[in-house]
Amino acid sequence: MARKITVNIIGGGNVATHLIREFLRNPEIEINQFYSRNLDQIKEFEGIAPMINDISLLKPADISIISISDDAVSEFSNQLKHYANLVVHTSGSVSIDDLKTKRKGVFYPFQTFSKAKKEINFKEIPILIEAQNDEDLDLLERLGNIISNDVQVINSKQRMALHIAGVLVANFVNHLYYQADKLLNNNELSFDLLKPLILETAHKILTISPKNAQTGPAIRNDKMIIDKHLKFIDDKNLNDIYRLLSKSIQENK
Amino acid sequence: MARKITVNIIGGGNVATHLIREFLRNPEIEINQFYSRNLDQIKEFEGIAPMINDISLLKPADISIISISDDAVSEFSNQLKHYANLVVHTSGSVSIDDLKTKRKGVFYPFQTFSKAKKEINFKEIPILIEAQNDEDLDLLERLGNIISNDVQVINSKQRMALHIAGVLVANFVNHLYYQADKLLNNNELSFDLLKPLILETAHKILTISPKNAQTGPAIRNDKMIIDKHLKFIDDKNLNDIYRLLSKSIQENK
Repeated sequence: MARKITVNIIGGGNVATHLIREFLRNPEIEINQFYSRNLDQIKEFEGIAPMINDISLLKPADISIISISDDAVSEFSNQLKHYANLVVHTSGSVSIDDLKTKRKGVFYPFQTFSKAKKEINFKEIPILIEAQNDEDLDLLERLGNIISNDVQVINSKQRMALHIAGVLVANFVNHLYYQADKLLNNNELSFDLLKPLILETAHKILTISPKNAQTGPAIRNDKMIIDKHLKFIDDKNLNDIYRLLSKSIQENK
Repeated sequence: MARKITVNIIGGGNVATHLIREFLRNPEIEINQFYSRNLDQIKEFEGIAPMINDISLLKPADISIISISDDAVSEFSNQLKHYANLVVHTSGSVSIDDLKTKRKGVFYPFQTFSKAKKEINFKEIPILIEAQNDEDLDLLERLGNIISNDVQVINSKQRMALHIAGVLVANFVNHLYYQADKLLNNNELSFDLLKPLILETAHKILTISPKNAQTGPAIRNDKMIIDKHLKFIDDKNLNDIYRLLSKSIQENK
């Protein structure tokens, strides 16, 4: 067996927590140190490795993973500017150059993480990596391949595009579920009615391109139905959403 | 065994085709006649029952199902105003009162149908019915229960709300998939990267309410990321969509 990879985990949010849990399942990965501003956040890992809340105490490891909120990464990394080993962040929309450390990289697991959910199958989660040289890239590739079957090298611009695409298909899609839920509630109908359609819509995309899968009043240019729907929808935001998405569907035929 | 239910099928589009295929699987249902303006559309059913393209030749059946485009239902039904038996339509956003027949009803299977897809499991598809009296409602309930485990009585206003909700979670969701696909293509990334996230987002909703499942920059009010994303998105429609959906998420916290 190759030498273990040693990692330090910096942060205690959702992504950090899921990564830690996954790393602990793999004997090829050894966690050297945990850092969190608030040690309560990572209490479930007590006894596994030393915990610090003073970043100047960070010891060497092959890879130190900063997994904190996107807008804090750059400033935080400034405190590690003299640190000799590889430091990576886990953010979609933060450039590798925003890290102020000597050796920089990115280790971006592309999935939606909520703290509540205990089990995530990392094997199927794409992990997007970036580094400044082949040696660091190899290190990240090795770490990625231990937990996932899908490790890819992409640059910061591509990662931003991927993050935006993720916002569209996860966050915005969920908001449409929310608006639909609200509409049904106001009409004394259960959200359960939508579940078969939601699943069918998601699964269809595994075999048909979204362009070919498009159905509905907008693509048919069914003005009568669109007008009826707009007249029916009282909620200002939802009315605007209906109008804009119908227009966008029609202009992308 | 109860007496068979006899039906006439009027129309040859996606919904009609899927209904016919499903009816033919069930010996308790007998198709008396097919009507289509264009008999080529329903060629696959030749020999099963007489086919007409002159509606004045329509014979009696327990239920005649008009499954044609929404905006044509009302005018078409006018030709059946002297017809004695129950006539129903299958549309989400057409009121029961738009039928000009003596006995009226609605038989609305709530799913997205594409002609390409051969197999649909009707058992899990909600069927929403409406009629003017208990006798007709019983008839529709019997027909619905033969093919589905989820038959519910709702009124025309509720059905409109459900149809709109369906547009949101199927047609608009698919358009977000499409926009994401385009964005990735422009950045030399594969749509495959999104598939695990798309499935996770849909499946999450089976156990968590959309309100509690909401994640992302908008709900976190992460202005820095939102601004970065808006700056990155060149496409005018997508930029407007990103802006509007982020606003709507924030105003629905």
